[in-house]
Order: sequence, then C-alpha cells, then structure tokens
Amino acid sequence: MTAEHADSTENAGSGTEGAEQRPGLSRRAVIGWAGAGVAIGAAGVGTVAAATRHAEDPVPAKQAVDVPFYGEHQSGISTPVQDRLHFAAFDVITKDRDALVKMLKEWTKAAAAMTAGREVGAGATGGLPEAPPDDTGEALGLPASRLTLTVGFGPTLFEKDGVDRFGLKAKRPEALVDLPKFRGDRLDPNRVGGDICVQACADDPMIAVHAIRNLARIGMGVVNVRWSQLGFGKTSSTTPDAQTPRNLMGFKDGTHNIAGTDDAALAKHVWVGAGDGPEWMTGGSYLVARRIRMTIETWDRTSLKEQEEVIGRTKLEGAPIGKQKERDTPDLKAMKDDAHVRLAHPDSNDGLMILRRGFSFTDGSDGLGRLDAGLFFLAYQRDTRKAFVPLQTKLAANDALNEYIEHVGSGHFACPPGIRKPGEWWGQALFG
Amino acid sequence: MTAEHADSTENAGSGTEGAEQRPGLSRRAVIGWAGAGVAIGAAGVGTVAAATRHAEDPVPAKQAVDVPFYGEHQSGISTPVQDRLHFAAFDVITKDRDALVKMLKEWTKAAAAMTAGREVGAGATGGLPEAPPDDTGEALGLPASRLTLTVGFGPTLFEKDGVDRFGLKAKRPEALVDLPKFRGDRLDPNRVGGDICVQACADDPMIAVHAIRNLARIGMGVVNVRWSQLGFGKTSSTTPDAQTPRNLMGFKDGTHNIAGTDDAALAKHVWVGAGDGPEWMTGGSYLVARRIRMTIETWDRTSLKEQEEVIGRTKLEGAPIGKQKERDTPDLKAMKDDAHVRLAHPDSNDGLMILRRGFSFTDGSDGLGRLDAGLFFLAYQRDTRKAFVPLQTKLAANDALNEYIEHVGSGHFACPPGIRKPGEWWGQALFG
Repeated sequence: MTAEHADSTENAGSGTEGAEQRPGLSRRAVIGWAGAGVAIGAAGVGTVAAATRHAEDPVPAKQAVDVPFYGEHQSGISTPVQDRLHFAAFDVITKDRDALVKMLKEWTKAAAAMTAGREVGAGATGGLPEAPPDDTGEALGLPASRLTLTVGFGPTLFEKDGVDRFGLKAKRPEALVDLPKFRGDRLDPNRVGGDICVQACADDPMIAVHAIRNLARIGMGVVNVRWSQLGFGKTSSTTPDAQTPRNLMGFKDGTHNIAGTDDAALAKHVWVGAGDGPEWMTGGSYLVARRIRMTIETWDRTSLKEQEEVIGRTKLEGAPIGKQKERDTPDLKAMKDDAHVRLAHPDSNDGLMILRRGFSFTDGSDGLGRLDAGLFFLAYQRDTRKAFVPLQTKLAANDALNEYIEHVGSGHFACPPGIRKPGEWWGQALFG
Repeated sequence: MTAEHADSTENAGSGTEGAEQRPGLSRRAVIGWAGAGVAIGAAGVGTVAAATRHAEDPVPAKQAVDVPFYGEHQSGISTPVQDRLHFAAFDVITKDRDALVKMLKEWTKAAAAMTAGREVGAGATGGLPEAPPDDTGEALGLPASRLTLTVGFGPTLFEKDGVDRFGLKAKRPEALVDLPKFRGDRLDPNRVGGDICVQACADDPMIAVHAIRNLARIGMGVVNVRWSQLGFGKTSSTTPDAQTPRNLMGFKDGTHNIAGTDDAALAKHVWVGAGDGPEWMTGGSYLVARRIRMTIETWDRTSLKEQEEVIGRTKLEGAPIGKQKERDTPDLKAMKDDAHVRLAHPDSNDGLMILRRGFSFTDGSDGLGRLDAGLFFLAYQRDTRKAFVPLQTKLAANDALNEYIEHVGSGHFACPPGIRKPGEWWGQALFG
C-alpha cells in the first residue's frame, strides 16, 4: 500500500463531511521521494518510509514508522514513547455546541492526516492563492516522525462555574474528579486545567509543534490555547527492553513502568473497562498532567550519597539501593523510609501502577538566575481516584524528593477510546 | 585515535590547573560500547562513534560525529547547523576579577570535555559520595551529538552603568556597539543583554541543555543566568547542498546564506581580520541574537499569494518570485518593493552578507490564547556596524514582514577566536 492509496482509503471513509473532499496532499509526495510508502501490512498497521528530516545530518537519514491513528485505543498512550512533546490545554470559548462538534470533526480529520505524514486539507500550497492555506507549511518535506495526537476532555467541559454549557454534565465520569489540593502544591493558575487537551508526541519537535498549531488554527473562534508545554526529552519508557532515559536529576526514570505491550497490565491499570463508568469512556484512559519544576540548583549542590538515598536508586546503573542492576527486584526495606522509589513502588501501594509518559522541560530562566526546568509528568490510568490521587497524596506528604521539586501546573482529562475508522470523530460517543 | 587517547591528550595539556587532574570519565566508556571511538583522522579532526541516544528508536541508531573544540575559530559558527539550541546570557554577579577568570578557565575545561562527549570533572558518579557530583548526570550514556559551545562577551562586561568593573573598558571593540533602538522594537527587558553568552548547539536537546546547566552550575556565585532560550529546530543552513529548513512561517529560510566551507566569504563577512579592531578579537566574530516573535495567528489568516509576496519567494519550492527553482538567481525587480528577500538581498545592500544560524522556538502560550513562537535569530558578522545595524535599520523601516513579526529580545556579543590547544581558556587574550 502506498501513501497515495492510504490517502484514497482515508478520504473514502470521510464522505459524510462535505467540504473537505480533496485528498490531503502527502508531504512525502511533495518532495518526490522514490520508494516512499513501502507496504508492510494492511491499513492501520502503518507504513514505513525513508525519512528525509534534516538533510544536513552527517550520516544517512534514519527511517521513520508512522503510528496508526485508527484503533481500539488512542495512540500516544501505550505507544513507545517518542522523543519530543507539545502538549496543549484549550479553553472552549464558544457556547455553540454545534460549532464545537464541527471543530472536533475537523480536528479528527486533520489528526488522521498529520499522523500519516500528510498535510491538513488541501495543504500549504494546494488551495486557492487568494485564500489562507489549509496547512501552515512548516512540516513540508518532513515525515510523520511517529506523530501521535491524543485528545482528552477536562472536568470544565462538563460543567464550569455551575453551568452545563454543552449538555454534557450527566455524562461526566465519576473518575474525572477535580484533583484535590495536594500538600506542597504551588500551582500557577495560568498552567492549570483546560476544557480539552491534546498531547502531541513525535520524534521531531517541528512535527509536534506543527500539529498543535494547526489544531489551534482550525479551532479559531471555538477554542483558545489556555496553556501549553514543550517537552524536549522523554523521561519514561514503555519499552522495558530499551535503555531507560534519564530525567534532569540525572537519574533513570520509569524503570518499573507498564510496558506498552503488556496487554494484561494495560487492561488492569490503564484502559477503562466496560462497567467502570459511562460507556463512552470504555477503552479510554484518564490522564493526569503535572508540571513539576525541579529546584535544579539545590539538587546540584546535594551529595551523590544523598541524591541516591532520596531516589532509592544508584545514579550510574539505576540499581535499587543495595542491588547491582537496574532491573533487580528492589529491597524496599534497604531504602530510607522516605525514599522516592520505596514510597512509589507498587509493593508499597497494594500493587497500584500508572503508565508514566513524562518529558523533561526547560523554559528559559525565572528572573532569579535559575533555570525553569523539570519534569512534565504525564500519567495514564484506569481510575484516577484509585491511582494518581492516593499515590500523590502519599508522596506529597512523605517523599524525600519534595525538597527538590514543586508542582506548578496541573490538568486532569478523560481520554476517550480510539477512533476505529475514518468518518468517526473525537468525542462522537460523548456528544452523539 | 580513540576517545580514551583523546582524554589523555586533553589532560596532558591541562596540567597547569591543579585541582582537576583526573581524566574526565567518558560518557561513552560508561555504557561499555564496543567499537566506539573509531579513528577517522588526527587530533582535532574529530572522532566518529556509534550513538546510543534513545534506544527506543525503531530503527538502528544513527552515528554522531564530534565537532572539534580546538581550532583557529570557535566552533558553532561555520559548523554545519545542528538541530537544537540552548542559548544563555549570563550576568556577572561578582566584582572579583580573579573569580571570573577562574570560572572562565573551568568553563573552558568543561566545554572541552562535554563537546568530546565526556563528563565534567570526575563525572556524575566518579567523585566522593559525600560531595555533590561534578556532573549533573542527565547526559550519561548519550554521545556528544555534535555539541558546540560558543562564548561571547557583551558590552556590559566592559563597562556597566559607567563602571569599568574588570579593567576591560579600554579593550572594548568599537564594533561591539550598543545596538540602536530599531523602529518597531518591542524589547522585553528580561530578554535583553548579558555580560557573557554561551550558544550551545547539538543534535540532541538534552545535550545542549546539559551543557548550559553545567556551565551555570560551575559559575554559581560568579554568574547568574540572565535569560535563556531553547530552539527546537534550525531555520538556517550553512551547507548549501543540503535541504533548506523551513521556519514557522512555513517558508524556506536562509537559502542564500554563507556556506561554512566558503573560506573566502567567511574571511570577508564573518571573521574579524587583523587590524579590524583589538588584537584579542582577530579570528573572532560578532554575534547578534534577536528573539523575533511571529504573530502566528495573523500570518495563518493571510492568503498564500500575500504570504509569497511578503517573503518574495514561493512557499512550496522556495523559488524567488518569477523563478522556478529555489537557487535560481532572484529577479529582485519582479518582487514587490517591500518584499523581505528584495530588501535583505546582498544586491540591495552593496553585497552585505551575514551568517545566519537561527532556530525556531515555541515557549507555550501568552495568556491571550496565542502561541508564543517565532524565530530566535542568530547572526555572525565581521563588524556589526557594517552588517546587522544597517540591514536591520532598513528592514525595520520597510519590510512587509514587519506586520507579522515583533523583535522582543536582543543581545550583542563579541565572540573571541578559537582555543587553539588545551591549557588556553575562553577570554585569555582579553583578560591576560
């Protein structure tokens, strides 16, 4: 199956939409690749294509694999974690439910196009010269870079200031709680909440930024970006066989994370089950986003011994205290009572696990000569009331790490199940 | 020459410094690579090493080439532009000249280590457990990723508020002018100036962030970060044969840039010549940094025709208006009078050229629902008075692009020539 055939399939399924019948221009076709779009399976399995990316690379360009957009679950959750992130929380600024639904339909089509490496609509140059282009164009010539776009709905979409703006109040899942104020929270109101979120992950930051920007553009007059966050390096892995990334404390993070291939663990801890709540969330997941600033300068003045005791792992190898290898079973009692790993470990929490998908961030400096840097924590779970809330309540009260971190941003979102086929749209079961 | 031999050479040359005699731990050695450090030439030509980077990559890891730290000119200027940037402007917060000199010596050694893929000092785990580690550790296991660190000195280092703090006033180059206020400038005082700057470029953002962070850490008590900027994608190329990157307006940028291999053009336009000014700057270059915010939302509502007329090039191909191919010789008279390319082209400016090395940035949103995004413009030149100042004066007055951009940050720095061998240090000729 070539990229062009994929376009045709895609558009055949979106015939209900009217205005956007033209096949989206393939970014790959634009640059005239030979041999792009080699088939490796049926529709939805993904296409492999040689990546052009930055032609200045001193070595042959690496290959990129598109992540399928359609499926039982949204991609971007159990998907192997990409290198870069652009996360955006949006406010809905209209009271017009139809306008919101129309935007969600347009978003879905644009997301299907962009995750397949195609341009939005008629593309950056395929429309009428007198009209603003459908696509902003900065990703022209670049492959999809494993782009995933994951949508979620925040508590305020269902009810805001006591108003049921879109007739959704009765459909709010009980699990989509207003997060409590945790001990030590220092939340910046400008980095909290949001009616809708989109998590864009890709191996190329330009691709993630392009995706959020084009969704924001499509949403003009319907939504505004409330806050957004770039992440420059993943700190968690969902592929246990791979090298575990390090966070900005210099430690390996997410060693004991849920594997994206562990269907049993995903079903138990991540995917919302039938009967867990409203039907529209079955197969979905709850996302908690926290902007966790690290007091980098204080941490950097701390001795290696104390750093390792605070975390509960060795720095170089990442082995649990008292053990030799990163993946050795931890002896929690060998750690200090307030060691981060000891407190957070499933064995200390009745087996509780969350799927972590965080990224390091650095947003310049803070006016006091300190880097504004840390961890943008993203965690997916089946029921936030039984996962992040009790875990963070405990950590906020006891974790030795609290001396070096500060939670400054926060969001909670209900991420519906996946789009199964072209023509369906984000939120269809919720709004339908 | 293996990486380990490079370590030995490196340390042989730094014997004057006393405290830091231990060979820096190689990040590559830490992870036990087989076959790392394959020789491709003599010292200073660089080593080739297999990159581990992020092991979740679905395809074989690409290779990375270290960029030599020592040379006639600083690296990071004519070097092929890397993918990512962390730029920091520092204030000197001490009055103690000796402390500043000591820090510059330490910075130089750390820069030599990090650009070779080694840890700072004894490394993240090689010191005493009771002491804070010499290296913050988040780059453990990662290759140098073509890291370059380029230092520059701002006007205020020579004289600030009428005070000659470090006895350098007489050595200030005339070319290091206080930049004039250009028409339309909307500079944020928190993003202007700086006594010292460091430009960190690498293909992996974690490597660039790690470098700036560790320099800031070494400088504790001597310098504070005044402002800093991450760039997530290069917008200019210094390798004319490569694919030209696009900026966030969706247009190819820097098509007609100075090639990093064009020694004649570099000598004419970029490197400070003997007799151009104070001897300590011969072989150096003047850097102008401008944070240029794009009014993305306005641009995105503009028709393709107007966008192309404003720039003076076609969007898809990047061809000059009226021509077919990107590198066709522009017919400036075919463009509108106020087209950006027409105004900025050397033929409209007596052959004036600057070496551009800018990056796209996105720093979240601005509280009004708009993305805070644009171009972090970096340009190197032989004499700013004859290059950026007249060019920007003209553009600020006439450029059609001004409707869509805003200059919000600014810095001007004198970047000395390169460090020729171990034992020399950043600023030696200036302070010596």
